[in-house]
Amino acid sequence: MPNVYDKLELLAITLPPPTQSVGAYVPVQRIGNIAFVAGHIAKRDGKPLAGKLGAEFTTAEGKDAARQVAIDLIATLNGAVGDLNKVKRIAKIMVLVNSTESFTEQHLVANGASELFGEVFGDVGAHARSAFGVAQIPFGACVEIELIAEVE
Amino acid sequence: MPNVYDKLELLAITLPPPTQSVGAYVPVQRIGNIAFVAGHIAKRDGKPLAGKLGAEFTTAEGKDAARQVAIDLIATLNGAVGDLNKVKRIAKIMVLVNSTESFTEQHLVANGASELFGEVFGDVGAHARSAFGVAQIPFGACVEIELIAEVE
Amino acid sequence: MPNVYDKLELLAITLPPPTQSVGAYVPVQRIGNIAFVAGHIAKRDGKPLAGKLGAEFTTAEGKDAARQVAIDLIATLNGAVGDLNKVKRIAKIMVLVNSTESFTEQHLVANGASELFGEVFGDVGAHARSAFGVAQIPFGACVEIELIAEVE
Repeated sequence: MPNVYDKLELLAITLPPPTQSVGAYVPVQRIGNIAFVAGHIAKRDGKPLAGKLGAEFTTAEGKDAARQVAIDLIATLNGAVGDLNKVKRIAKIMVLVNSTESFTEQHLVANGASELFGEVFGDVGAHARSAFGVAQIPFGACVEIELIAEVE
Repeated sequence: MPNVYDKLELLAITLPPPTQSVGAYVPVQRIGNIAFVAGHIAKRDGKPLAGKLGAEFTTAEGKDAARQVAIDLIATLNGAVGDLNKVKRIAKIMVLVNSTESFTEQHLVANGASELFGEVFGDVGAHARSAFGVAQIPFGACVEIELIAEVE
Repeated sequence: MPNVYDKLELLAITLPPPTQSVGAYVPVQRIGNIAFVAGHIAKRDGKPLAGKLGAEFTTAEGKDAARQVAIDLIATLNGAVGDLNKVKRIAKIMVLVNSTESFTEQHLVANGASELFGEVFGDVGAHARSAFGVAQIPFGACVEIELIAEVE
């Protein structure tokens, strides 16, 4: 079993600080060994990355944004679990894409997150998912992703 | 551990009757100690509270609607579990906000539910969540919320 | 306990081949006895059934599409679990309906899936659910459904 932190280093990924609680809810909550990670929105330089797929952003840009959200989710998991090697399964992700009424490539946007989980976690990262287009996202962000993981 | 019913009384909250099954699906289903509560839509005087955030409703009105949906969810949990003191964790909520394409304050609407769970359940109410804007909701309701809880 | 395959035969339902992995994610992932089934989109003759409720499709057509997605989900569960009689509970479904801004009958569309699960699985099929209208779905599909089941 490869060490997750070695994998992150190989991929030249530096984890940002984990998302902090903002009062009304928490970034991660658990039932037994199931960790529910709150929806994380796309950011750039610490600010919401706002815009719609099909208008302000291309599919490739959306995919990059989804990849970065996945890194933020990993950082939050790291803060909550304390050791990413204790993550036993990325079980499911839900990928929300801020979409115009005619944009239909949410699956390609979502691949930015799905592929990253595979690169970082290997077989442990093989997850089920849903991806779809929503009317809006808090702060106008282009992508929001929530995650369910199995942890030790 | 404070008694949840005392807390509801202190907050002057009277629980409505729990949501009943409507044939094709049930309001609560369980896997072991995990309770999945079906999406509940915003209502007023027993009828769907219809309209979009960003058009017919302000953020403050949406927040009030979300708070009321949270009360309805608690009533349904009460009906299913029989004793709210057996709720061990409000683990995750998903808050759907019926939004125009430009409304971006779904997180503030969702706080109406999140804050209520904190007031009623204290630490047990500290949940993960996702909030986002959807194109429509059954009956045109302004808000729909589903919930996952840990129960005894 | 009736045999699920007998029930499928009685209903004249032939299961299609289970959904295959497409690289970036898997059709079913488990945490213990909980199976998370990825979002499945509506298809006809193997191709995405594209269009919006409230525009290209009527509620009845959407309900038919949701029923067919439920059959595809059962086929995928069959492939993953190996024996549908080992499915102990269809716990929750999330039904996404590709909707115009004014279509508000997502619950009636969702009934196409909910009723099918009841017909095939009886009490085991009694599930919680959320149904709502989204701005778009991958490939423009009219319906997407994900599922959480308890399995042996």
